[in-house]
Amino acid sequence: MTQPIHTAILGASGYTGAELLRLLHNHPAFKIMALTGDSQAGKPIEAVYPHLRGRNLPALVKHTEVDFSNIQLVFCCLPHGTTQEIIASLPTHIRIVDLSADFRLHDAASYEEWYGHPHRALDLQKEAVYGLTEFNRERIKTARLVANPGCYPTCSLLALLPLMARGIISPEGIIINALSGISGAGRSAKQEYLFTELDGGVSAYSIGRHRHVAEIEQELSAKYQPLESDSTARKFMKMISPEKRYQAACPINFTPHLVPMTRGMLATIHTQESMREVMPLNEVHAYLNAYYKNEPFVKIMPLGTNASTHQVRGTNQCFISVHYARAGYLTLVSVIDNLVKGASGQALQNANLMFGLPETTNLELTAVFP
Amino acid sequence: MTQPIHTAILGASGYTGAELLRLLHNHPAFKIMALTGDSQAGKPIEAVYPHLRGRNLPALVKHTEVDFSNIQLVFCCLPHGTTQEIIASLPTHIRIVDLSADFRLHDAASYEEWYGHPHRALDLQKEAVYGLTEFNRERIKTARLVANPGCYPTCSLLALLPLMARGIISPEGIIINALSGISGAGRSAKQEYLFTELDGGVSAYSIGRHRHVAEIEQELSAKYQPLESDSTARKFMKMISPEKRYQAACPINFTPHLVPMTRGMLATIHTQESMREVMPLNEVHAYLNAYYKNEPFVKIMPLGTNASTHQVRGTNQCFISVHYARAGYLTLVSVIDNLVKGASGQALQNANLMFGLPETTNLELTAVFP
Amino acid sequence: MTQPIHTAILGASGYTGAELLRLLHNHPAFKIMALTGDSQAGKPIEAVYPHLRGRNLPALVKHTEVDFSNIQLVFCCLPHGTTQEIIASLPTHIRIVDLSADFRLHDAASYEEWYGHPHRALDLQKEAVYGLTEFNRERIKTARLVANPGCYPTCSLLALLPLMARGIISPEGIIINALSGISGAGRSAKQEYLFTELDGGVSAYSIGRHRHVAEIEQELSAKYQPLESDSTARKFMKMISPEKRYQAACPINFTPHLVPMTRGMLATIHTQESMREVMPLNEVHAYLNAYYKNEPFVKIMPLGTNASTHQVRGTNQCFISVHYARAGYLTLVSVIDNLVKGASGQALQNANLMFGLPETTNLELTAVFP
Amino acid sequence: MTQPIHTAILGASGYTGAELLRLLHNHPAFKIMALTGDSQAGKPIEAVYPHLRGRNLPALVKHTEVDFSNIQLVFCCLPHGTTQEIIASLPTHIRIVDLSADFRLHDAASYEEWYGHPHRALDLQKEAVYGLTEFNRERIKTARLVANPGCYPTCSLLALLPLMARGIISPEGIIINALSGISGAGRSAKQEYLFTELDGGVSAYSIGRHRHVAEIEQELSAKYQPLESDSTARKFMKMISPEKRYQAACPINFTPHLVPMTRGMLATIHTQESMREVMPLNEVHAYLNAYYKNEPFVKIMPLGTNASTHQVRGTNQCFISVHYARAGYLTLVSVIDNLVKGASGQALQNANLMFGLPETTNLELTAVFP
Repeated sequence: MTQPIHTAILGASGYTGAELLRLLHNHPAFKIMALTGDSQAGKPIEAVYPHLRGRNLPALVKHTEVDFSNIQLVFCCLPHGTTQEIIASLPTHIRIVDLSADFRLHDAASYEEWYGHPHRALDLQKEAVYGLTEFNRERIKTARLVANPGCYPTCSLLALLPLMARGIISPEGIIINALSGISGAGRSAKQEYLFTELDGGVSAYSIGRHRHVAEIEQELSAKYQPLESDSTARKFMKMISPEKRYQAACPINFTPHLVPMTRGMLATIHTQESMREVMPLNEVHAYLNAYYKNEPFVKIMPLGTNASTHQVRGTNQCFISVHYARAGYLTLVSVIDNLVKGASGQALQNANLMFGLPETTNLELTAVFP
Repeated sequence: MTQPIHTAILGASGYTGAELLRLLHNHPAFKIMALTGDSQAGKPIEAVYPHLRGRNLPALVKHTEVDFSNIQLVFCCLPHGTTQEIIASLPTHIRIVDLSADFRLHDAASYEEWYGHPHRALDLQKEAVYGLTEFNRERIKTARLVANPGCYPTCSLLALLPLMARGIISPEGIIINALSGISGAGRSAKQEYLFTELDGGVSAYSIGRHRHVAEIEQELSAKYQPLESDSTARKFMKMISPEKRYQAACPINFTPHLVPMTRGMLATIHTQESMREVMPLNEVHAYLNAYYKNEPFVKIMPLGTNASTHQVRGTNQCFISVHYARAGYLTLVSVIDNLVKGASGQALQNANLMFGLPETTNLELTAVFP
Repeated sequence: MTQPIHTAILGASGYTGAELLRLLHNHPAFKIMALTGDSQAGKPIEAVYPHLRGRNLPALVKHTEVDFSNIQLVFCCLPHGTTQEIIASLPTHIRIVDLSADFRLHDAASYEEWYGHPHRALDLQKEAVYGLTEFNRERIKTARLVANPGCYPTCSLLALLPLMARGIISPEGIIINALSGISGAGRSAKQEYLFTELDGGVSAYSIGRHRHVAEIEQELSAKYQPLESDSTARKFMKMISPEKRYQAACPINFTPHLVPMTRGMLATIHTQESMREVMPLNEVHAYLNAYYKNEPFVKIMPLGTNASTHQVRGTNQCFISVHYARAGYLTLVSVIDNLVKGASGQALQNANLMFGLPETTNLELTAVFP
Repeated sequence: MTQPIHTAILGASGYTGAELLRLLHNHPAFKIMALTGDSQAGKPIEAVYPHLRGRNLPALVKHTEVDFSNIQLVFCCLPHGTTQEIIASLPTHIRIVDLSADFRLHDAASYEEWYGHPHRALDLQKEAVYGLTEFNRERIKTARLVANPGCYPTCSLLALLPLMARGIISPEGIIINALSGISGAGRSAKQEYLFTELDGGVSAYSIGRHRHVAEIEQELSAKYQPLESDSTARKFMKMISPEKRYQAACPINFTPHLVPMTRGMLATIHTQESMREVMPLNEVHAYLNAYYKNEPFVKIMPLGTNASTHQVRGTNQCFISVHYARAGYLTLVSVIDNLVKGASGQALQNANLMFGLPETTNLELTAVFP
């Protein structure tokens, strides 16, 4: 690669920023020219992250100090809300992968409902491409702004979307129980995320009202096409306005939990069989296997084995296992590393695509196990 | 208490045995006269559990070495299977709390189905009283043999039974996702329970086929009385023979997970509203609060807060929080310490009752937090 | 106990306050009348510590809201510095166990050197009795103000003092490496104590300059009486002013580490043989065993076995093992639970003594293992 | 690289074997042709390590099934003892990196003393080159058999050797306290390494008698040249036979500890100033910085900061911080990932050298943090 692609990371002092720096080590095309971190501006990155010592990275600066005229690619790791205005202010020649939640919801009303305030960059919101790579590859290649998916949606949708698209599962009654490593909470000092408050115990949180619900329902509903015979779903679809369709088509029941580990995410997904197609377990398994056969980052576990977060720690992989549980439920277990496929790894996967590089560049990693 | 009650612990070298020894420290009535542990016989208990140094406990012996004529109470912490024959061989004057799974299922066919062999002490199986204290108190008081419940059933049933008994929830479509500390796997050396295999990651196991399913369904079904208007359930009830009724009435979908903590259990329980009674969340909460008002070991968390295993670590408590999730589901979170209310604590609670002592004797513990 | 002793806990919203509440559960004499926590004033304690639900404790108030005329015993769990002035303001009829570092150093100059400011309650500092119970029992019984020792000093001194008093070890060249659970850092939200920053790794901190050094050296030096033949030590003793003697007599090299566990402290102590008495390992062991024979809270492990923090988790015990290492060093390993014998447990032990109760009241606990 | 170097891993089913497979992913020169694992022979590697799914690796076979005529490089990850005979049986054209302890000690008597039996391949033992890369680079390049150092020796020696070589520290009175992640214990099922036995606590083990003592003393002594004025050391040197010289020159006091983390190793090293050269801390720091300036895998932390295992997790790096502690001790903290620089990473570093590749090939990794 003769001409490096000049790259900036906004919000490099958070965990997703640090993880991008890990993954970009020796990247053959992306050259890191600027790292921003407003509260830590002026410090070398190794003062904030000693593990980056020796990498010869630029020091942290305020984002207003960056000369963006010379930047071609921005990874934006800023907090929700702040992101909208900063991205809107960037020169339009820059292509952006945004890791915040700001541009994931297509519907302005849905955004306002879940985030509690009107969106402040509606034009960008319309333009943004949802970056679940395996399901949006072609649009990502040409996108200027990619909205990198949330960790829970990535983990859940990779298991659900192929089944929903084929009509194997019912759009109703989907229950997702998810376990997350604590790194998902970020690096801000909060009492509830102290070691002492989390070590040796587990808890659920935001039951039924986590913001990732909107994102999962949006994408599930986009894949769902009700048949004439799906009476309940059709009934809902008729009753409601087109803008609200996503809400009614595939309502999910989502319960996230915090478990005492740093990285990793596991979603246990319970679905009911579709009325239109009842498929034996081995056929579901074969279907998923075939569906993802050529995907470098999704693997279906052999029947009878269990996906575990240990298997994907530190990698951009999603491993999925399928199981019949009692009483007519198809249960799926999907695992990712929340900081990689759930954040920075998928962001790099998308950036690789956007710049015409092999999608797997710098992402061919083996799990750090044990 | 002038005359101590002579007590033996069979299988004292396992974790539930050790936990009983913790809880029996300075018990005003139960005096430990014998500890058995066949593979470690001859060793002082502090050679096996150094934390018991200084307690002046009897050394471990083989169970054949115990003079049972002088024993009034036995806690049996032996593995499944072995238990049946050993308990059948004990003098009949001895009252027993059995912590194994051997006497929990009333139905011989169900036992055989889930455990893979015919029961070897059918008379005792019929006599045994299921020891979920809060729901069987009177029968436990006079029982000779109490089958102490499993950890998952205890955690799940304390949340579900009051709702089922009142008809607030539907008997169909109950989904239980449970997270367990590793101590539930016992002290045997197995590769899958090594620190390195579990630290920093999570996995599900035995999806849809964990043996505790049978126990939960048995107890749920016993509380369930279908109305004329509950069409689906009634239909099943009519189709099947009386012996199989327990299976059809309340089929559950149960998924246990291993999380990297030593103690604690959390069940996230999703239930559908009953057709016969739709109750607002605050009423469900008030109902549960009233139901457990006088129970020393069950507490309902205030609405809007979450039960966490940290809150009950080291105690005999069960904390339950209630939540509406999206799409018509009532979600409950129930937490216990798997070794206490899920095993040795409930065993002591039952033994206290059996010998006419206050149920809370030696169990008024505050959680070890942080 | 007909007349309960009215007790207040100042700073009850921190971890040592919470631990005192655990240990005071059903205490036969001390009745909790007031809990202060200035930043959380007005809240019920279970809003701050959900695991205390159901204990019928008073709500948190500001310390200015407490009617101290009715209080007989105060446990003071306030931060260093604040403590001095608040304790100085209490009515003099109150007896106090102070868990801060404010009154542990007898020497005003030493205090100022290590804490960076002059002491603000010098009279109280002189009056305070150092509360390492096993070595100060008689003075504690009649003390008005007990300075409860730090966790590292407790763990180190219980191993070292008997050997120093007998002259078995040299006062020079003592090296203490200590590992602490994270609860020692308290409940304040700081980035460095987040789960993600500590899980899965270890580090040393404050090498050679931790404030507990002053406390350990003070107590070691008090026990040390140089013989004529101890040339080096005597030389130092002569060279320096009496006020600085404690510094020179027994300088230690102390390195604390943070390890990813919540509770527990282990000190690995390397000492050199004294010139005046070279004792074989089994005699050192026998000497320590005899020394602590009647102590309820100190146990010497059998030769050839290792003390581990698991053995004392949740208890007021200190377990000590002794080992010869290569090259003439006697190595000792001493373990405590930093929140119990290292803080709140020893505080209760002292309070029991001060009010004429059995020292072990409410402290006869078995370790929570596993 | 047109002709791949055919590579076999013996003992690939253990943790160091799995870690080699992680590091060899997409290696430009080494092609994995055979994986042996006698007890698991016949299984695909992903049945033993599910995280290796999708890597297209050969299945596990018995080592007798391998056609070694076609192999050029062997990584030997077999247990101590077994290794000697198997390596002796390999064709002599094969170059070997041995990760066991079998060929690390040059002295046959020392081997017999520490390992309890005579060495069974004395010729190979003489030929073997000790593979601490930074100190033996030239000999490793041409070696046929490299004895890869132990994890504790690597971590300790990288901090000590430059100081010893320059005479900055005394050869006497070196104290090493080391903390190890549990992966160092391997994957065998043993009760003492169960999650429940290790989580939430710490302990020391093998105090003064860990076999790595011999290895550390051997290498330290090799670097040590006593001056006329170093009276004590010289005295010892004269008294003893040349074969035992290594024992007397630099006796160390070594205490390893197990801490509840999977990966990582930290050595806290206390050294006394040499008589011949007393160097201020900043000069020691500058000296070490200069010493390692061109080394890709050793970094000296800035004065005033602490090395932590988090900084090197998953990498081949060693980070070292230097500190004066009280009472004349220079304290160093050295950290590595025990499975990488402490085992498989250094093995690959050596193999790269042996085959004329850049030493850093496939080892330019950024730490997995958080």
